[in-house]
Amino acid sequence: LQSKLPGVSTTIFSVMSKIAAEYNAINLSQGFPDYPCDPKLVELVNKAMKDGFNQYAPMPGNIFLKETVAEKVEKLYHVKYNADTEITVTAGGTQAIFTALTAIINPGDEVIIFEPAYDSYAPTVKLLGGLVKTYELAPPQYAIDWDMVKKLFTANTRMIILNSPQNPTGSILSKEDMKSLIKLINGTDILILSDEVYEHLIYDDHQHQSVMLFPELRERSFIVASFGKLLHATGWKLGYCLAPDKLTKEFRKVHQFNVFSVNSPMQQAIADYIKEPGHYNGIATFFQEKRDYFRRLMAESRFDLLPCNGSYFQCAGYSKISDEKDVDFSMRLIKDFGVATIPVSAFYQKATDHKIIRFCFAKENSTLALAAEKLKNV
Amino acid sequence: LQSKLPGVSTTIFSVMSKIAAEYNAINLSQGFPDYPCDPKLVELVNKAMKDGFNQYAPMPGNIFLKETVAEKVEKLYHVKYNADTEITVTAGGTQAIFTALTAIINPGDEVIIFEPAYDSYAPTVKLLGGLVKTYELAPPQYAIDWDMVKKLFTANTRMIILNSPQNPTGSILSKEDMKSLIKLINGTDILILSDEVYEHLIYDDHQHQSVMLFPELRERSFIVASFGKLLHATGWKLGYCLAPDKLTKEFRKVHQFNVFSVNSPMQQAIADYIKEPGHYNGIATFFQEKRDYFRRLMAESRFDLLPCNGSYFQCAGYSKISDEKDVDFSMRLIKDFGVATIPVSAFYQKATDHKIIRFCFAKENSTLALAAEKLKNV
Ligand SMILES: CSCCC(=O)C(=O)O
Ligand SMILES: CSCCC(=O)C(=O)O
Repeated sequence: LQSKLPGVSTTIFSVMSKIAAEYNAINLSQGFPDYPCDPKLVELVNKAMKDGFNQYAPMPGNIFLKETVAEKVEKLYHVKYNADTEITVTAGGTQAIFTALTAIINPGDEVIIFEPAYDSYAPTVKLLGGLVKTYELAPPQYAIDWDMVKKLFTANTRMIILNSPQNPTGSILSKEDMKSLIKLINGTDILILSDEVYEHLIYDDHQHQSVMLFPELRERSFIVASFGKLLHATGWKLGYCLAPDKLTKEFRKVHQFNVFSVNSPMQQAIADYIKEPGHYNGIATFFQEKRDYFRRLMAESRFDLLPCNGSYFQCAGYSKISDEKDVDFSMRLIKDFGVATIPVSAFYQKATDHKIIRFCFAKENSTLALAAEKLKNV
Repeated sequence: LQSKLPGVSTTIFSVMSKIAAEYNAINLSQGFPDYPCDPKLVELVNKAMKDGFNQYAPMPGNIFLKETVAEKVEKLYHVKYNADTEITVTAGGTQAIFTALTAIINPGDEVIIFEPAYDSYAPTVKLLGGLVKTYELAPPQYAIDWDMVKKLFTANTRMIILNSPQNPTGSILSKEDMKSLIKLINGTDILILSDEVYEHLIYDDHQHQSVMLFPELRERSFIVASFGKLLHATGWKLGYCLAPDKLTKEFRKVHQFNVFSVNSPMQQAIADYIKEPGHYNGIATFFQEKRDYFRRLMAESRFDLLPCNGSYFQCAGYSKISDEKDVDFSMRLIKDFGVATIPVSAFYQKATDHKIIRFCFAKENSTLALAAEKLKNV
């Protein structure tokens, strides 16, 4: 048996959450809340099940949910997506990413990714016989020099994967970034996969620069969104993909043979819930407060906090503390200090080591305080 | 934009369910119950949500669920699967099929399928650059001549897809079939993908011949199972894949980048529910009564009922009624008689037409009676 992904092992998120549990450590590794989602939302799922939404949803998604998403998107970004032909509900953001890549990438196609990056992008491209062209971003700003991106272009460049706000760095793309990108791809047929699962988690005076805001990008983009992040229910595994009808058509050809359709009662419940913008409008403030709280606590530690403009991740350098590798240092944090994090080297295919780890601050303040207390001793 | 699946359009199940709704027809097309699932099961999901199972489940599945599946499998088949390394919970049977194929098939690999077949198999193989070698089974018995299967073998044969009880024909594989298969693949490294989502729906004195019962097959098989079919909740999209650890390892490499993990509260609830074998032991009798009821009603029609030994599908020939194509005839059944079915030609890549349609009898008796009443007029 020859493995199609010989270099790949279990994703870092599973590994760290498992070790965190084994050592009974405070888990700031995998990105998920440790507080409950809204009981109203739970009640709506219960209602949907009782109302009989227990059989196959329509393949592209619950119609009411797709329409509600279209309204929400229009309200937030003043951009229209057709619920019938341009929105597909998925079993989470990751499935949307996998499906979009599978629908598009042929053997030999090249895909540009910016690292550090969510760890599904590169192996999925490779699984499809594609080639990953990697642009390594440098801390602490993780800024993109678009002239350098251009140097990665070849006749085989098929797609660029964007992720803003970015996991793991919390960096965001600016309007200038988007304009540079537009100039770059003008005249090419390069597509964009824009992972915007943290679209709402953007702080201070920043605006989320969704690719949909730029017609030249919108027309060639798959945009991936996550209800798990929005609703503090990552375990429900629901998200969606926005794409112009031509791209959606190809997306659905794969989607229907991958998962066919997705969880029916939860789709109905989420539609009911997000009808009310009050149910998610405060989320940026909510997480900004957590970010600020955690940063204040950590200012007393020997960690160097990197900027965090979005997402629910805070990166921190530890070179003043140790010259161990990221992986070794974060293992030691679990074992000796009882705090689980993610080594940022895990977000680079080459395991590039900048002596930086990632904390997830989507946690109760008491959890953050307890973790910071332990981290101050490091 | 060049499509990777140029010949493919929306799956027949979506198309028919949509048209059925438009014409307000009785929907005996797509395979799902029109009666509620057990309220106890709904209550358990509600409990799991309230108990906080709303964040990412472990990537390979809820541990309690995997252990419960291992116990159930051992009780039913006297075969052991290791919950930790050989069982993976999936977002439905279709995702398990897609993931297993994606983990194994390389461009140029050949996969043998028996048609009529569930419509995801062939396009998924093609999407992966594989070649489909098709064995067309002949009504009314849809029996397999294994010497003919052998003729399809080449040096590139990588996998055989089995499906017993079979969708759409309701035919089943016998012990003799399995023994012939064992002889055939002895000495080859051909793998098996065994779609056993209807494992419990087997009638009269027949026994389900799972590949796991045959050590020579078990060691090289991915087995796909469905909680949707078992629990009358197809819309929850939960199933699992059993495979020896070497195969499971490859399966999970893809699974983690495809959906990452699956619905957490429902996994917990299903584990609680199926702990009690009484919650599913009666399912064969339940569906056999529906099959017999529907067949009795339909005996008064001009349709020729084919044998049905398993699954919740009843096929019927209509050549005494019409010489239209399956697709045209089933469209006319919707429009003129108000009953939606699936044309069996849709289960052949070449749209082979035997003048047979498929009814789903997982419906209230009153629904079946109403449908039969209309069908008697055809
Ligand atoms: C799907 S695993 C978790 C993904 C995530 O949110 C993370 O980066 O921790
Ligand atoms: C996933 S679509 C429905 C599959 C099925 O049960 C059918 O053949 O109708």
